[in-house]
Amino acid sequence: MAAFQKIIDLIKEKKTLLCVGLDTDLEKIPDGFPKNSSGLNEFNKAIIDATKDLAIAYKINFAFYEQYGVPGFKALNDTFKAIPPSHFVIADAKRGDIGNTSMAYARSIFDYFNADSITVNPYMGYDSLSPFFNYRDKIIFILALTSNQGAFDYQKQKINNEELYKLVIKKTSVSYNFEQTGYVVGATHPDEIREVRKLVPRHLLLIPGVGAQGGDIKSVLKANGNSPAIVNVSRAIIYPDGDGDYFERVRNKAEYYSKALQILQ
Amino acid sequence: MAAFQKIIDLIKEKKTLLCVGLDTDLEKIPDGFPKNSSGLNEFNKAIIDATKDLAIAYKINFAFYEQYGVPGFKALNDTFKAIPPSHFVIADAKRGDIGNTSMAYARSIFDYFNADSITVNPYMGYDSLSPFFNYRDKIIFILALTSNQGAFDYQKQKINNEELYKLVIKKTSVSYNFEQTGYVVGATHPDEIREVRKLVPRHLLLIPGVGAQGGDIKSVLKANGNSPAIVNVSRAIIYPDGDGDYFERVRNKAEYYSKALQILQ
Repeated sequence: MAAFQKIIDLIKEKKTLLCVGLDTDLEKIPDGFPKNSSGLNEFNKAIIDATKDLAIAYKINFAFYEQYGVPGFKALNDTFKAIPPSHFVIADAKRGDIGNTSMAYARSIFDYFNADSITVNPYMGYDSLSPFFNYRDKIIFILALTSNQGAFDYQKQKINNEELYKLVIKKTSVSYNFEQTGYVVGATHPDEIREVRKLVPRHLLLIPGVGAQGGDIKSVLKANGNSPAIVNVSRAIIYPDGDGDYFERVRNKAEYYSKALQILQ
Repeated sequence: MAAFQKIIDLIKEKKTLLCVGLDTDLEKIPDGFPKNSSGLNEFNKAIIDATKDLAIAYKINFAFYEQYGVPGFKALNDTFKAIPPSHFVIADAKRGDIGNTSMAYARSIFDYFNADSITVNPYMGYDSLSPFFNYRDKIIFILALTSNQGAFDYQKQKINNEELYKLVIKKTSVSYNFEQTGYVVGATHPDEIREVRKLVPRHLLLIPGVGAQGGDIKSVLKANGNSPAIVNVSRAIIYPDGDGDYFERVRNKAEYYSKALQILQ
């Protein structure tokens, strides 16, 4: 099934937009897991078990695995395999390069890891992204307006009276098939989510920045309306505060966000 | 030794700007090498042996290894280890993400692989790059104006009468220590290399796009003047055309480019 239909069906069935971000860091996982790549993978499996009925998607942040080198890349692969095929998988890798290099990245993400989607960086323009779009059944999330402070440096600068992130959305939304094209817009910018929805009401958005980064859920949902979106929460779920059993706390946090991220369909 | 001093010394000693790009693809390596990750690594070792007295640097393109998944990442690590410590090593990974994620990428590139430098994408702004700059002895090559056609989509668009790539250079060259900061400017844009040199005469440039991508060496050298630069050639050296012994042809191509890329010091 094409990734777009898969996520639309998941939102309809589970009535939530919650994606759990697997930004797994050995320094933060609880005692009892070995401090190595199999520990990373065991922790992720326990997170998936505790959250899979509450979430529609998992986002795997490649940096957190690459920091451990070859064993980390092995844990990355094991984590991809541990996610049930029922769930939507985002390879959060922020890739993008000249054509033949992007083609190799696309093979890595889609042929090797078999992700449903990837995050890509638009700075290098059209031909740096098109190799990813050759995978017709996948979704390519293009960075538009990111959740961090640095979004103001370039993304919000104006080109012909229009912010760069809007130019990115306008150009790419006419270049590529809409079912394959998604956009990353940070939860820290609810007003801009509303602006983005005027430009691309039907496209899938990936909205990170809720939880540790401080994005407000109600404002985000209101700005997004009934359009298809995935809202990612990483640290606030996988590293829960409080006392008591670790994975009960993970589950409680995931329940909280799963309910908070319900939308009317 | 700090990476900046290392590359300055190498240019002075070897009197060439040649960097050999290890964009190694199993489909393109000659018969006799196993078509697996150890074949990748053996081929790279033979390339390094044939070129090390002619080049100052090697650029390792991560995508070409990641496309083979875990065994590819193992070959990537083995390739890093195969480069003599005398040479300058560029991790061509085009990374960049929010702060805690960029920090993990920086750990991967500098703590695990021990590269001298990395290529990074500036789209996410200041705080997405600063974790890389915490490694005081390394060089961070920021994408400015890339060699591909897509450079015209955003990088050459004007913000307040100035192209985006110039805004990137102006902002980052005042934010970061100059010995740590490099810029990627494609050989396909010699006029713009001249413009860049007006802005940052002392910074190290990484200039890809000579050879298969068609950048003209004489125009590039003239535009760059006597400023410090590394000029990368990948496919034209590691996949040489013609007949006869493969690695003799590699060496002949490397000799050609090494001489063509001599500068007066």
